[in-house]
Amino acid sequence: MTERVYLDWNATAPLRPEAMAAMAKAWELAGNPSSVHAEGRQARRMVEDARTAVASAVGAAPGNVTFTSGGTEANVLGLAPGVRRVGAGPAQRLLVSAIEHASVLTGGRFPPDLVSRIGVTPDGLIDLDELRRSLAEGAPALVSIMAANNETGAVQPIAEAAEIVHSAGSLLHVDAIQVVGKIPFDIKELGADLASLSAHKIGGPKGIGAMVAGDGVEGMEPLLRGGGQERGQRAGTENVAGIAGFGAAVAAAIGTSATETARLEALRNRLEGGLRHTAGAIIFSEKAPRLPNTTLFTVPGLRAETAVIGFDLAGIAVSSGSACSSGKVQPSHVLEAMGFGPKIAQGAVRLSLGWSTSETDIDCCLQAWRKLANALLSEERNTA
Amino acid sequence: MTERVYLDWNATAPLRPEAMAAMAKAWELAGNPSSVHAEGRQARRMVEDARTAVASAVGAAPGNVTFTSGGTEANVLGLAPGVRRVGAGPAQRLLVSAIEHASVLTGGRFPPDLVSRIGVTPDGLIDLDELRRSLAEGAPALVSIMAANNETGAVQPIAEAAEIVHSAGSLLHVDAIQVVGKIPFDIKELGADLASLSAHKIGGPKGIGAMVAGDGVEGMEPLLRGGGQERGQRAGTENVAGIAGFGAAVAAAIGTSATETARLEALRNRLEGGLRHTAGAIIFSEKAPRLPNTTLFTVPGLRAETAVIGFDLAGIAVSSGSACSSGKVQPSHVLEAMGFGPKIAQGAVRLSLGWSTSETDIDCCLQAWRKLANALLSEERNTA
Repeated sequence: MTERVYLDWNATAPLRPEAMAAMAKAWELAGNPSSVHAEGRQARRMVEDARTAVASAVGAAPGNVTFTSGGTEANVLGLAPGVRRVGAGPAQRLLVSAIEHASVLTGGRFPPDLVSRIGVTPDGLIDLDELRRSLAEGAPALVSIMAANNETGAVQPIAEAAEIVHSAGSLLHVDAIQVVGKIPFDIKELGADLASLSAHKIGGPKGIGAMVAGDGVEGMEPLLRGGGQERGQRAGTENVAGIAGFGAAVAAAIGTSATETARLEALRNRLEGGLRHTAGAIIFSEKAPRLPNTTLFTVPGLRAETAVIGFDLAGIAVSSGSACSSGKVQPSHVLEAMGFGPKIAQGAVRLSLGWSTSETDIDCCLQAWRKLANALLSEERNTA
Repeated sequence: MTERVYLDWNATAPLRPEAMAAMAKAWELAGNPSSVHAEGRQARRMVEDARTAVASAVGAAPGNVTFTSGGTEANVLGLAPGVRRVGAGPAQRLLVSAIEHASVLTGGRFPPDLVSRIGVTPDGLIDLDELRRSLAEGAPALVSIMAANNETGAVQPIAEAAEIVHSAGSLLHVDAIQVVGKIPFDIKELGADLASLSAHKIGGPKGIGAMVAGDGVEGMEPLLRGGGQERGQRAGTENVAGIAGFGAAVAAAIGTSATETARLEALRNRLEGGLRHTAGAIIFSEKAPRLPNTTLFTVPGLRAETAVIGFDLAGIAVSSGSACSSGKVQPSHVLEAMGFGPKIAQGAVRLSLGWSTSETDIDCCLQAWRKLANALLSEERNTA
């Protein structure tokens, strides 16, 4: 492919060289980590070193990290009736913010009638008053709130939410998949009881993630049963190379996040400055605290699917809302929850940046956008 | 590590160069297969090419292949109440052979009281009369029988079992994880309705597998819900590199199996010829049809855990029974089902061969065994 500009990092990040190196090293090891011979012990060591790296990235104990096949499996593993904080009652229902990822909205292993949604403000932040009211209404709950939304980048008030949840005798799961390496995330400081992680959003391989628990969380039932791997929490031969790549990626992401945050934010501001030149441009969650790398925008009259194809033909990879599911054209449930009608929601285009994004990339994107906006919006106006 | 001899291929196989090449290629693709831009479409193509390779290796339609995070997840996905053949009643109970992998013995998503075991003969083959009787006793069942046992290598009478199962209005799941690339396996020819596959047993990466369905199988409920990936059968961003590596490994395994089968069998016979020189040596499932690469043996008085460590110190990686679970010392449930008492079962050592195994490897192993046998067995006799 000739020079392309990749601005779809929230869908998946390119693999970091550090992750490639770790995985190539894992490839040379023949052993199964459950085997007692030298080859098995080497593979085991690689898994445990990565576990330490992942745990340390989010302030957890290594023994509380359960590797899964990705964020979706982590969410389904963690969202199960019966999980509880030591001394508290087991979760009997699930409260999720209305802007969660599809794998959380479906409720994990809770039956649908035990799952309720908590609304968000027009800026895309969870409504803490509604959370408080919902918690007061019934039995101990597991509450699931993402650390930052994948579409808007809006950073949720996790510490405040944790306080509310805990004082109601409930416990908090945080989908931290979009934040690790972008902004600080420490489960102890924030008060999260469970957190889902995914490697491929931070430059690790696809197909590996983790469910991380805080201290004193009990009652998590395995989803995959059979062998005794992952302390009996998740059966199946470990994805040794994937785990090693995850460990290396998370270490690299955390190691550079202090400078990367500011660099990405400057690039994102340059991008948004350019987009704002288009009359009527809307940047979603503009007034909320946001991830430094994410812009979700539209212009009245824009159709996102056409815009994404236009960008693609111009050599720029962007997405329309969440790209996690198959390429269907549906208004984003996130914008719907924020109160936008389908006409606006169907026009939302997401641009997300990462460590290889340069000023030139941003300028290329803006140049392409100016041409596209002229063509698409005038066409739209003509046919309206 | 200095020159080691790896004879634990049934636990996990070293990664094939073809799989490495395919994965390295996948690493260069930034996209999420669900994204509509060029990067996404490239990733999608890689996934679908691998799906075709996997399907073709086992005689299935590509649309009937659901990629999972490995054999355990495939088993848990496939073993669920409600699955049925078109026109037949949904499976209401699960019958498993007593020598299945732990992830099948636990019954997948069937409640424990709906799972029954079918015994095996002293040679380690499923008792087809008992299967017939159990099917006659109740509601339509899902029956799970492995194509070949991971410990003994005994090849099960799948075609006969399929006939029995189908004529009882039930359906058959086959754990084919140990056979692909070792002996021919075609789901249509054998009459399997569902089959579990795993990449890392055939030289693909760890952390990827598949559930394959025959035509006309319905009612399989997803285990992971959220995004629409894998035709709604398995949510979560696809493990693109893992899938690509799986596709390349299975193609390589199938491509060489015609010559490899004979080569491995000759090596295995050489190995067993040597082992038989030890007085009292027992080769398990000796009289059953067996995989060409597997030897499970013991000598009265041998303790497997000591033998495995002795082999390891001599530079040879072997295992005691199944190595899929954590390094616990328990008599093999397989040998127990075959009627062997704990004294014999705890002495069983498995040697399994693969494509890089050479005559020199076998001779090294036999040399090490002669020394070990002298030391271990005389010690045993002195302390007996």
